[in-house]
This record gives sequence, C-alpha cells and structure tokens, in this order.
Amino acid sequence: MPTERTTTATADDAVAAPRRGRPGYDRETLLSVCVDVFNRYGYDATSMGMLSKHLGISKSAIYHHVQSKEEILEQALDRALDALEAVFAEVLASGSGPVNKLERILDGTVRVLVDQMPYVTLLLRLRGNSEVEEAALQRRRTLTRTVEDLVRQAQEQGELRTDISGKSAPRLMLGMVNSIVDWYQPGRSGTVDQLAATVVTMVFAGLRA
Amino acid sequence: MPTERTTTATADDAVAAPRRGRPGYDRETLLSVCVDVFNRYGYDATSMGMLSKHLGISKSAIYHHVQSKEEILEQALDRALDALEAVFAEVLASGSGPVNKLERILDGTVRVLVDQMPYVTLLLRLRGNSEVEEAALQRRRTLTRTVEDLVRQAQEQGELRTDISGKSAPRLMLGMVNSIVDWYQPGRSGTVDQLAATVVTMVFAGLRA
Repeated sequence: MPTERTTTATADDAVAAPRRGRPGYDRETLLSVCVDVFNRYGYDATSMGMLSKHLGISKSAIYHHVQSKEEILEQALDRALDALEAVFAEVLASGSGPVNKLERILDGTVRVLVDQMPYVTLLLRLRGNSEVEEAALQRRRTLTRTVEDLVRQAQEQGELRTDISGKSAPRLMLGMVNSIVDWYQPGRSGTVDQLAATVVTMVFAGLRA
Repeated sequence: MPTERTTTATADDAVAAPRRGRPGYDRETLLSVCVDVFNRYGYDATSMGMLSKHLGISKSAIYHHVQSKEEILEQALDRALDALEAVFAEVLASGSGPVNKLERILDGTVRVLVDQMPYVTLLLRLRGNSEVEEAALQRRRTLTRTVEDLVRQAQEQGELRTDISGKSAPRLMLGMVNSIVDWYQPGRSGTVDQLAATVVTMVFAGLRA
C-alpha cells in the first residue's frame, strides 16, 4: 500500500489508473509489492507495466526508486541470501560437532524461510536466465555445499549413518526445508517452533515411534 | 527432435527459420519439446511463437497437433498426475498398515518423479492462474490429503511419533520428494534405488547413526 494518499481509491481504481508523478511509496513497500507480483506471475513474465499497475503508480515513479526490473530482483534476492548466509556464518563459527551444526542450520533456515517467505520464494524459483539470477544461484550453491561438507564430516565421524547416499541426503533435507515456502501458512500450519522441531526430528531421528 | 528430416539443419537454423506446412513431429516429441520450453521460461511467459521457434516448425503446424497452448499443458499435466495417481491407487488397494503404505507411496513417488521428471516439474511449478492449472492442483491436493490421512492413522495406531506436527510432517515429506526435480541428475546423483531408499530411511528412521 502507498504510505500516503490524499484521495481514497479502491484496488481496482489503482489498477485501472496508475497515479502519475508522485511515488507515494517507501522503498521497502515498493520492494515488497514487486516481489509479490514476481512470485504471482513469474519474474520473466512480469513487465514494468505490470508492476506499475499493481503499485498504482506510473513507470516513471518506479524509476524514481530503481533503475530497472533487474535492480528490484537483485535487492530482493540479497535480502533472502543475506539472511540465509547469516545463519550459516553464525553456526559455522561455533565449535560444535557436525550434526549439531546441521541441526542448527536446518532450524535457522526454517526460521528465515518463514520470516522472509516472499524473498526466499523468489530465490527458489529462479531459473538462472540472467547474470543477476546466476550470481544468486551461485551463492545458493555455496550454502548447499556447506551442508554437503557437514553431512560428509558427520558420516566420517560416525555421527550419521553411512548406508544412505551422502550426495542425495543434503539435497533432500534442504529440499524438505525449502518446500515450506510452497505450503506453510503462519497460524494455520502450526508455529514456527513446531515446524523447525518437526524438520529436525524427522531428518535426524525419523518419524517412526 | 523432428522424427523425419530430408535436409540437415543445425539447432540454430531451426530456431532462425521455422519450417512451414510440414509438421515432422509425432505428438509425443512435440509434447516433450514444449514441456522443456515451459519449464525453461515458465508456462505463462511462453508464447506459441516461442514454441514454434524451439520446435522449428510453423505455428500452423503446431495447430495441426493441438488447439492451444493450454491443451499442451493439460496433456503434460495428465501424464504426471496419471502416473502419481496410479502409485497411490495401487498402494491404497493393498492391505498393509499405514506406515508401510506411506513408505511405498514415497518410494513410488520418487520413481515417478525421476521417470517423468519434466512433466512433474511442470506440475510442481504451476501457480493456478487458469482452470486447467487449478484442476491439476486440485488433483495434487487430493494426493497430499491421502498422505495426511495415512500419517494421522499411523500416529493413532502408535506406529509414528506424536511429538511432531501431523499437519507439517506430510507436507515436509512430500516437499522432500518433490525437490528431486530441482537437483537430481540421473547418473551423477546415484541410482533411483539409492535415492528412494535414502528418502524412506531419512523420513522414518532418521539419519543419526
């Protein structure tokens, strides 16, 4: 929503008649609305014209904030990746064993996904069709490799079973966590604490009673 | 690739100059190429013109096979959903307990995902922007509810732990399996047998040694 409005307008009015010349958005709200449109229609299928309609402001008002659609994408991806990287950095700096590190990485990643859901959703749906997308996917791959390394260390140290695929297991556990953006509804699917605990329990202890 | 060609042409030639008037594709190959284009650019962002370029045939040649882009989508989604529903139907018809059923559903779903990867990828990336998409998502939700029911039965019968969220667990295990389309590379990520075994072991027994 615009931060300031002098006239009352319905959402339909805003879509039908973009307001011109006066942005009326702070950068944060603009980013949030654009990311929702990207997630709804796909980044590639979203034009600056569509962003203008959904924001209810003119294209030139958008250009007051950003130089291009890609700059919006880059800022949104930075938000998701910065948060994920912060979790990994904090856990890796600690002196605990590999399974404890894995548990805390999964727990922290679940919390970032719930907290920054639209931004992580955008990240997870990237196809790598541009340099900005490829750079983001590269940062994501670095996180995946960290989890792979920890699984291998844990297997070598006898903390994790070795009768499963050390190549597939890291991707399966991250895939499980990443799926959260597709179905989790705060309030309807339980608390984030329950969610994080269910992930960690399933991966390391299993569901069997 | 076209099934029959009288002249040699590179992929670039095919993209630059659509061939007119003679389809040169069987329905199966046409479907497969179109699904790859959908998955690469997104269904919404793919035009019949783009399909024409990638197929190397004219739009009218495509219309020789199908009435619309949406008909191609519908056929592709049917392929994925028919295969998944067949797994569920076979397992549900058996007389085993809920955990055994869940194990076989996960095992069978992994195999369908690997076998029909492009078609399931398309299904999993749908946004529900049309009636065809919404109908497919409805069929997918029915499968999810079956897994939810089995988890609840297993918890009630004491076969699965009750200290985890019965709402989240079914979606997390399916999310883990669905992630396979994003990263699994036959030959490089191990065999499908190892993959299915890793999924079933992780979900029910856990990774801890």
